[in-house]
Amino acid sequence: MGASFVERLGGAILSGAAPACVGLDPRVDALPQALEPSAGPGSRILAFHREVIPRLAGRVPAVKPNIAFYEQHGADGLAAYVETCRLAKDHGLLVIGDVKRGDVGSTAEAYARFHLDVADAVTLHPYLGSDAIQPFLRRCGDEGRAVFVLVRTSNAGAAELQDLATPDGSVAAVVAAAVDRLGADTATAHGYTSAGAVVGATRPDLLAELRARMPRAWLLIPGVGAQGGRVADLAPAFDRRGLGALVNQSRGILQCFAPADAQWRDRIDAALADFVADLHGVAVPDHPLP
Amino acid sequence: MGASFVERLGGAILSGAAPACVGLDPRVDALPQALEPSAGPGSRILAFHREVIPRLAGRVPAVKPNIAFYEQHGADGLAAYVETCRLAKDHGLLVIGDVKRGDVGSTAEAYARFHLDVADAVTLHPYLGSDAIQPFLRRCGDEGRAVFVLVRTSNAGAAELQDLATPDGSVAAVVAAAVDRLGADTATAHGYTSAGAVVGATRPDLLAELRARMPRAWLLIPGVGAQGGRVADLAPAFDRRGLGALVNQSRGILQCFAPADAQWRDRIDAALADFVADLHGVAVPDHPLP
Repeated sequence: MGASFVERLGGAILSGAAPACVGLDPRVDALPQALEPSAGPGSRILAFHREVIPRLAGRVPAVKPNIAFYEQHGADGLAAYVETCRLAKDHGLLVIGDVKRGDVGSTAEAYARFHLDVADAVTLHPYLGSDAIQPFLRRCGDEGRAVFVLVRTSNAGAAELQDLATPDGSVAAVVAAAVDRLGADTATAHGYTSAGAVVGATRPDLLAELRARMPRAWLLIPGVGAQGGRVADLAPAFDRRGLGALVNQSRGILQCFAPADAQWRDRIDAALADFVADLHGVAVPDHPLP
Repeated sequence: MGASFVERLGGAILSGAAPACVGLDPRVDALPQALEPSAGPGSRILAFHREVIPRLAGRVPAVKPNIAFYEQHGADGLAAYVETCRLAKDHGLLVIGDVKRGDVGSTAEAYARFHLDVADAVTLHPYLGSDAIQPFLRRCGDEGRAVFVLVRTSNAGAAELQDLATPDGSVAAVVAAAVDRLGADTATAHGYTSAGAVVGATRPDLLAELRARMPRAWLLIPGVGAQGGRVADLAPAFDRRGLGALVNQSRGILQCFAPADAQWRDRIDAALADFVADLHGVAVPDHPLP
């Protein structure tokens, strides 16, 4: 077995990579019109990814395909998801499958076997409790993979359930503490475990409390760009080495152009350069290391 | 558009069907050995379903394929899931896709478009809030479909998050109230809306409170049989017409035989007859109608 997900992620950032992840959320009607316009959805998606994945490699450490945009096209789309993940891995990118699965027992084992084979890490729902996380963590141990449990998401409705008060803090804070506990037995690198968490950029005021509940968890942070979160507000998520958080942007990078725009490659390069520069500019406070 | 999911489900039970759902959770190593033993996973699953779906039709109103057992085999497995749903619909069965999806915005729309086309209803995670449910409910309105939101699941770890106390009751009770609210604008039949809920049989003491929070929701009840829940404890879930709850059994029906057992069809028939008789025997109290 090679280096684990957390080892590779931390290593890349210590070597100078921005803590950046690019979301691969292919909408067929937002793809460049010039690329195989008459092919089926799976082929069009792959034609786009064959162009963009090599451009991302070496500039960001990770990509995050959201499987919904593939799965909606059925078997052909799922095959494109698998091939996209393979292609990204072949280019040295870490692949976080944004699958948001959540089931228990043998069902969770079935999901874990497949999804942690296709991707290096996956996102998971916490509603069913630790039964829904542990089958994935067991495979993380065997294969050097990682998980990111949904803790506090970036959407408007997140508050309805995740911010409810309980005797031990908000629901999100309780889930954060569970992530910390579940991660304790997993592979670690640079002080971080293989049990990470999704924490949105849209409520940066919650970052410090959630970070305190799970000091050893990598945070995957969506919600910058289109959803309104600002990179400048995310400093509390990082430690003083610049580790501990990976910021994702999707539409702002790979849908930053009009489908008819012949200069779409240049637009992506420019959006990516801005995103990377933003992230390199985050002034991290003198946080304790995990 | 034909009759809606809730109209067909209620109508079938009023016409004498048991409130029974059979889970289709195909494990390749638990299939009858005699059926296409040398074929790939998708073909073996379909060979089994071609035998069992006609045996279920007319005896239960609904089936619930759990997509994990198909998806784990990749594109071939997803194609088998789609074909299984089509086959069940062709035999007049209602199909509840146990997909447990949960994402927001355009991602949820992508999931809804696909999964409510393939199946008549789906299960959903509530952790992201109503943003993750509404895109599905919008399609329920257009297409007469339904959703079942995970409220109180049947697994051991369910208590960790779902039973947490909040100022408005347990987390599960808060989600139940949200299901009631979200269902208000959907198609209804026999007093029930298109927003249903998953409530496990393993904690029947919670049924009455959850039912009171969502009097108009169909309850999909897993956890009888292998997980220890008892049909006899489920009376509080039904109204006096016998409507309002659909009880699922998976392993107890379609994995009730050893793979080498040549009499596997008879075993399934017998297990199914027992399950149906159990459900017909539930003495429902004189509940108010929704």
